[in-house]
Amino acid sequence: MKKIKVLTDFLEPNDAVARQNREIFKKHRVLVLNLMSSPGAGKTLILEKTIEKLKKGFKFAVIEGDVATSNDAKRLARYNIPVVQITTESFGGACHLDASMVKEAMQGLAFSSIQILFIENIGNLICPAEFDLGEDKKVIVLSLTEGEDKPSKYPVVFRNADLLLINKIDLLPQLDVNLNLILKNTKKVNPQLSSVMLSAKTEQGFKKWLNWLVREYKSKSKLI
Amino acid sequence: MKKIKVLTDFLEPNDAVARQNREIFKKHRVLVLNLMSSPGAGKTLILEKTIEKLKKGFKFAVIEGDVATSNDAKRLARYNIPVVQITTESFGGACHLDASMVKEAMQGLAFSSIQILFIENIGNLICPAEFDLGEDKKVIVLSLTEGEDKPSKYPVVFRNADLLLINKIDLLPQLDVNLNLILKNTKKVNPQLSSVMLSAKTEQGFKKWLNWLVREYKSKSKLI
Repeated sequence: MKKIKVLTDFLEPNDAVARQNREIFKKHRVLVLNLMSSPGAGKTLILEKTIEKLKKGFKFAVIEGDVATSNDAKRLARYNIPVVQITTESFGGACHLDASMVKEAMQGLAFSSIQILFIENIGNLICPAEFDLGEDKKVIVLSLTEGEDKPSKYPVVFRNADLLLINKIDLLPQLDVNLNLILKNTKKVNPQLSSVMLSAKTEQGFKKWLNWLVREYKSKSKLI
Repeated sequence: MKKIKVLTDFLEPNDAVARQNREIFKKHRVLVLNLMSSPGAGKTLILEKTIEKLKKGFKFAVIEGDVATSNDAKRLARYNIPVVQITTESFGGACHLDASMVKEAMQGLAFSSIQILFIENIGNLICPAEFDLGEDKKVIVLSLTEGEDKPSKYPVVFRNADLLLINKIDLLPQLDVNLNLILKNTKKVNPQLSSVMLSAKTEQGFKKWLNWLVREYKSKSKLI
């Protein structure tokens, strides 16, 4: 009980910092996406392929969140884009990013030369969903291998999301997973949530995600 | 910073309740296993198959932890064993089980007719690792689809575990995953951690896990 009360106290200053972050992103016309998933759902590979395919047209940066290691930051830095690593091991192993961590990471980025900023959150379907980072949109990556009932079992992250990427779709023939049931369970918790089925490995369905991203960027640029 | 301090305050009463739970388990000669994993790694299917295969020889019970739904409890109750569901949605959506939740769930179980109690923790590789529930052993389930670097990226859960089950091994031919690298990364964070590779779906490797379980039960019974 005590812990829950503290979490509520903690959310208010988080929201204030998230608003400050959002103002900075808006001022610099940067589209910011907060990517969330279970561990190993494929967020980093999706980012690698996205940056590779769009790097001629867009200037990217990544804020990379992990409990430990800078493995993912190293993978992304190979694309010659600015990458800032947040390792929460030094914050007591925090299980999510919060707006203050992002604010600190933002000090390392030159926003005048960034158009799209990805924040790769810590692999966790529960806690990250509660923390506004100042992003424009929240994107969940669900691996097909995780089964049909994740939207029902982790409702908050699905309820707050703007886009669902169902990854590892290439494994469909090998799995006893009912794709329609995933979509049906998703609609129950968030009827507005759009979804894209893709495989970061085979690139099947990948273009639909890229089109969504470009559309979001254009829509944000026009707003300002 | 504030949050970390509170988490420390919170752990002490948790450990006191965990000790009480442990005394009760010991008194009734019940082997208690705390199963942890990412969402969708296959904990429930592993339990279903385990109970099905050993139910003639052992009396099982399950405490089932989820943020929302009682889907998994329903799956397990079909085996005519006692199942108690903890749904943390009513505790502010807590991202892990704690010793007090388990203590409360224990009220619903008749320990005189239980030999092995499984506690299926909430799907999360970070927070559950910090909370002693009073269990004898901690078992991690890692899905092969999650990739090689999970032991390095989520070190606490691997460091505290007694057994690693690498599940969905039937998908090995379809994945670009290096099994030896998973084992090597595991050894780096926990050189003592034993591992069993299995597929709950095809039952490949399953016997090794059942042998481990029976051995643990015998070892606990003899100790008392």
